[in-house]
Amino acid sequence: MLIDSPSVERLIEAFRRLPGVGKRSAERMVLHLLTAPEEQSRVLSDVLKEARERIMLCSVCCNLTETDPCSVCVSSKRDRSTICVVESPVGAIAIEKGGVYQGLYHVLHGALNPLDGIGPDELRIDRLIKRISDAKSEAPVKEVIVATNTTAEGEATALYLAKRLEPLGVAVSRIAHGVPMGGGLEFSDDMTLTRAMEGRRQF
Amino acid sequence: MLIDSPSVERLIEAFRRLPGVGKRSAERMVLHLLTAPEEQSRVLSDVLKEARERIMLCSVCCNLTETDPCSVCVSSKRDRSTICVVESPVGAIAIEKGGVYQGLYHVLHGALNPLDGIGPDELRIDRLIKRISDAKSEAPVKEVIVATNTTAEGEATALYLAKRLEPLGVAVSRIAHGVPMGGGLEFSDDMTLTRAMEGRRQF
Repeated sequence: MLIDSPSVERLIEAFRRLPGVGKRSAERMVLHLLTAPEEQSRVLSDVLKEARERIMLCSVCCNLTETDPCSVCVSSKRDRSTICVVESPVGAIAIEKGGVYQGLYHVLHGALNPLDGIGPDELRIDRLIKRISDAKSEAPVKEVIVATNTTAEGEATALYLAKRLEPLGVAVSRIAHGVPMGGGLEFSDDMTLTRAMEGRRQF
Repeated sequence: MLIDSPSVERLIEAFRRLPGVGKRSAERMVLHLLTAPEEQSRVLSDVLKEARERIMLCSVCCNLTETDPCSVCVSSKRDRSTICVVESPVGAIAIEKGGVYQGLYHVLHGALNPLDGIGPDELRIDRLIKRISDAKSEAPVKEVIVATNTTAEGEATALYLAKRLEPLGVAVSRIAHGVPMGGGLEFSDDMTLTRAMEGRRQF
C-alpha cells in the first residue's frame, strides 16, 4: 500500500468485513471516501452511529425496528393468525417486497449450525413458542409458515421447528421448493428439479 | 423496505454513494452492520472519522498521506529526476505494486472533462509545473511519465500536459498502450490492437 497510514489500513480492514466486499473493493471505497468531499465520509460515519443507536429488535417478532413493537406487529391491517418464520431481517424484507403476505413475522437471527456452535438456544425459538402460547386466549395463531433458507442449515431448522411447534396445535407449513419463475429449466440444479417434481400439483 | 426507519434509509443511501455499490449490496451491508455485534459498526464509524482526520494531501505530490511531505517525496531511495503523473492515488498504488518504478509521483486528482466542468484549473497541473521549476536548481527533473488512464479524458489530459510541459525542457513520455500481459489476442479490442501494432518495437 502506497499510503503508509495505519488508520487507512484499519479502515480498509473494517470495510472488508462487510458482506460481499473483497480487498480490492474495500480499497476502492476507502480511497473514494478519502478523496471525496469531507461531508460524504462524515455523513456515513454519523448516520451509521445514529442508525445503530436507534435500531433495536422488536420485542415481539425480533425484527429490526426503530419503535417497539415494530410497525408490522402493531398494524391492525395484518392477519394475526399467521406467523412467517425467517432466518434474518433480509428474509422478511424479501417476502414483504413480494407484497402478497399479510401475516406477521418472526425472525430467528440465524439457523441451526452445530459446527458453528449455533443450537436452538442461540435462535429466537423459545420466544416464538411463548408468543404462540400467549396469543392463544386473544388472537390465536393458526398457521406458522417456515420460510428459512433452502440451505442445509435452513432445512434442519425447519424440521426442528416443525417438531417443536407440533404440541402447540398450530398448522406448520414450509414454503414451496421448486423451479424459480422466469427461468429456463436448464438453469436449475438437480436438487431443485427433483424438489419441483416431488412438489407437483394438479391443475 | 420493511424496517421503516429513516436513519436506516439514510445509511443505505450513504453506502450507495460508494463506488461499485448498488441498492442491493448497500442493503446487505447495512443489515449486516445492524445485526452484527455493535463493536463492528462502532469500529467502522470511528476508524472512518479518524482516517479522514489524519489523512491529508502531500504538499509536494498531492498524494494521500499521514505525514507531509509523504514518505515517497522524502525518501532518499527515490530517483528524484523522474515524476510519474497519475490521475488518482489508486493509479500510484497500482504502479507502486508493480515494484519497478523508483521515481516520484504527482497526483492530478482527476482528468480533463469539459462536460463535467473539469478544466486545467481543477487539476493539480500548475502545482506540477511549479514543482518542476523549483527543482531546477537542486535536483532537476529530467523526465515526466504521463500515466493518466487510457480513457478519452486521460488521453486528452496527457496531450494537454505534454504541451504545457514542453517549455520546461523536460522529456515527457506516455506509458505504452498495447495488449495486456497474460491474455490471448482475441480478448483485446480493436483500439488496443491498433495501438499495439503502432507501438511495435524491434527485437
